[in-house]
Amino acid sequence: MQKFAQQLREKADPIWKASFQHPFIQELQEGTLPEEKMKHYVLQDGYYLSHFARVQSLAGAKAEDFITVNRMAFHAQGSYEAEMAMHQKFTSMLHISADEQDAFEAAPTAHAYTSHLYRAAHFGSTGVIIAALLPCYWLYYEIGERLQGAEPNHPVYEEWIAAYGGDWFKELVDEQIGRLNAYALHATEAEKKMMEEYFMISSRYELGFWEMAYTLETWDTAAPSSFRK
Amino acid sequence: MQKFAQQLREKADPIWKASFQHPFIQELQEGTLPEEKMKHYVLQDGYYLSHFARVQSLAGAKAEDFITVNRMAFHAQGSYEAEMAMHQKFTSMLHISADEQDAFEAAPTAHAYTSHLYRAAHFGSTGVIIAALLPCYWLYYEIGERLQGAEPNHPVYEEWIAAYGGDWFKELVDEQIGRLNAYALHATEAEKKMMEEYFMISSRYELGFWEMAYTLETWDTAAPSSFRK
Amino acid sequence: MQKFAQQLREKADPIWKASFQHPFIQELQEGTLPEEKMKHYVLQDGYYLSHFARVQSLAGAKAEDFITVNRMAFHAQGSYEAEMAMHQKFTSMLHISADEQDAFEAAPTAHAYTSHLYRAAHFGSTGVIIAALLPCYWLYYEIGERLQGAEPNHPVYEEWIAAYGGDWFKELVDEQIGRLNAYALHATEAEKKMMEEYFMISSRYELGFWEMAYTLETWDTAAPSSFRK
Amino acid sequence: MQKFAQQLREKADPIWKASFQHPFIQELQEGTLPEEKMKHYVLQDGYYLSHFARVQSLAGAKAEDFITVNRMAFHAQGSYEAEMAMHQKFTSMLHISADEQDAFEAAPTAHAYTSHLYRAAHFGSTGVIIAALLPCYWLYYEIGERLQGAEPNHPVYEEWIAAYGGDWFKELVDEQIGRLNAYALHATEAEKKMMEEYFMISSRYELGFWEMAYTLETWDTAAPSSFRK
Repeated sequence: MQKFAQQLREKADPIWKASFQHPFIQELQEGTLPEEKMKHYVLQDGYYLSHFARVQSLAGAKAEDFITVNRMAFHAQGSYEAEMAMHQKFTSMLHISADEQDAFEAAPTAHAYTSHLYRAAHFGSTGVIIAALLPCYWLYYEIGERLQGAEPNHPVYEEWIAAYGGDWFKELVDEQIGRLNAYALHATEAEKKMMEEYFMISSRYELGFWEMAYTLETWDTAAPSSFRK
Repeated sequence: MQKFAQQLREKADPIWKASFQHPFIQELQEGTLPEEKMKHYVLQDGYYLSHFARVQSLAGAKAEDFITVNRMAFHAQGSYEAEMAMHQKFTSMLHISADEQDAFEAAPTAHAYTSHLYRAAHFGSTGVIIAALLPCYWLYYEIGERLQGAEPNHPVYEEWIAAYGGDWFKELVDEQIGRLNAYALHATEAEKKMMEEYFMISSRYELGFWEMAYTLETWDTAAPSSFRK
Repeated sequence: MQKFAQQLREKADPIWKASFQHPFIQELQEGTLPEEKMKHYVLQDGYYLSHFARVQSLAGAKAEDFITVNRMAFHAQGSYEAEMAMHQKFTSMLHISADEQDAFEAAPTAHAYTSHLYRAAHFGSTGVIIAALLPCYWLYYEIGERLQGAEPNHPVYEEWIAAYGGDWFKELVDEQIGRLNAYALHATEAEKKMMEEYFMISSRYELGFWEMAYTLETWDTAAPSSFRK
Repeated sequence: MQKFAQQLREKADPIWKASFQHPFIQELQEGTLPEEKMKHYVLQDGYYLSHFARVQSLAGAKAEDFITVNRMAFHAQGSYEAEMAMHQKFTSMLHISADEQDAFEAAPTAHAYTSHLYRAAHFGSTGVIIAALLPCYWLYYEIGERLQGAEPNHPVYEEWIAAYGGDWFKELVDEQIGRLNAYALHATEAEKKMMEEYFMISSRYELGFWEMAYTLETWDTAAPSSFRK
């Protein structure tokens, strides 16, 4: 029988496919993505990772066994290191100025996605929080895999593709998939339903995140005028 | 000198004006709003209030003085009673069936707004949480005031307008405005900045909420294809 | 088969019996309790109730159904009203001065017990939090029942006995017992174990609370010199 | 002018001195501490560290800057590694059996101290949580320093003394002292008062922890019969 995480992965498949086919990913792969869209992505992603790390910490803080406390702290540190490595590299390669960094404001989708993770931490057990965090790990790994061999002929996009294809990343992803499956074994039906809901909505937000970058989304441009003053 | 809450109100004015002028409010006032949009609103609003009450409880749970603990609990109960009263009335008047209620799913904007409130409760003091909650109180009161005297000639819209115009509601709103001002008096600059950020984003979400209702937003229709699979 | 809450009650029976037989309760019943011990109790109990109300609010904020959100808010308000009513009455009857109130410091047992409740709110579901809160409701009700008919011939002790004997209190207690039983029906074994642990430790703290009052415990007198500088 | 953390250290001096002079520390230094008391200490300390790590994670999850998120995660991992290292070593040296480990139950003081840390995480900002965590770091460092050169002539006590005397530990302690001072610079008077309260009570619990170990405290032996059934 299929394990729980794999069941969720299958349910989310249409949403993940929409991510694979999103113009942001397509153009990144082909090297035609306008750099300003990548810039928007890089800045919002740094913000995202800083909150991802906080929610990883919260997942550890609620864990019943000390090993999970420790591993989630390790993963939180990993988010920091990933951000630092990418930040330095891409900031310089994309000529992101100090002014641009100072003027940063979280875009609606980045704000909503990270708020969704804090909500998971309020209501959920460690297992539920991991279900909410997992699409970010897993989808990036699958995208990394799909893009191996692509030749965008653009140093930034080549760097990005290389970052998510490594074995070190696969190990982190597999660890969290295994953790969710372990929690699901002892979860009630209500808790598994909650895990599914958070996993599905995080999958939606992953898709929305590409769109946010591709449309250079801000609170004043967010379509369809929902937030425009 | 202008009090802190009034300063926030002024900063948010363009966003609030966009709410006043939103077609949902305009058509509700004129009685031309299609009932299915009101239905969508009513169901999402019930969901919203149930989370509003939880975050009111969290604001109380973090308060340093017992009176605020008590008042926030009182307000949380008020959200429940408002929802119960409206639910019964509108469910019957709008012929919302049991099936429609069972099929309920939170729309992206309703989910994002309530997640934003939980985020405030994670990071913020009681004062910050109240800043995040306040636009919902205050904007509804201002809309209620503006719509007094309107003659939509539609029993549902007349009921809705009547609900937010009363003195009982004004007292609740004034109480929370006063509470925010009291907290702001002893807040650091960093905390006041946080209050402002949450107040502004909640104001954006209030605006987005009308749009959500007006466009019958679901995860599959949310524009511009951000979340569509 | 015995319901879950009744199973916990039975397991805690030796600890509850020690409360029934504690000199604080015995002497209160006989009217021989020195007033300074009652004073210490009243002040610490006011502090306790203010935190009890916050944790009741947290239990509501984590609840999945809106009715529980509402009822826990109602109970939080009840704690406030109980405290206000008792405070006024006993402060005046026991001649507790404004200076004594200002000099208030939580005693070690009052601090530890309320910290234990916050810990339940961090780790636990609404069901677990209620298990931690329940001994306070239930034990007081049983003590109230046992003391009906006692004639301490002391207006303060008569008031206190009357407060916990009423039907209004029985209803609140029964409601929370019923709530715990309802949660336990759908809880995993791990969660039920957690409910038991919090219930048992809260029972210990109830017992410790009488001792705290009877020994006029402060951080500097707490035996056996554990906290003494 | 003296920095904030040093002011707290000074206020807590009488309590810290009582720790230095506690028979547990005295006899450990002289090598006369009965091994069963050390066993009790080691098991309770492992439990303590597992919760210390969770609260370190919570401090990170509330931090406003990403560096602190990262450093607190690093420290949480350090608690795990310290526990693992000590656990293996002392379990074997003290012949702590698997049965003894399985029968472990948190002693009242260990439970109360860690609950106190969760309470800090509920009410406090990152700065307040660090104030609550700091006495554990700092007192151990001072004890480690004082005990350098002691010759207990007992391999377990020599190991323990060596563990807290190293430079690696001094760096961790200094980092957290510096962090508290940095937070205090921008804190309101109310927040600094809260930092002081948590620091002082944690200092009390550190003292109580030696007593807990020395008296082999359990819920049934906790004096003065407070919790005995």
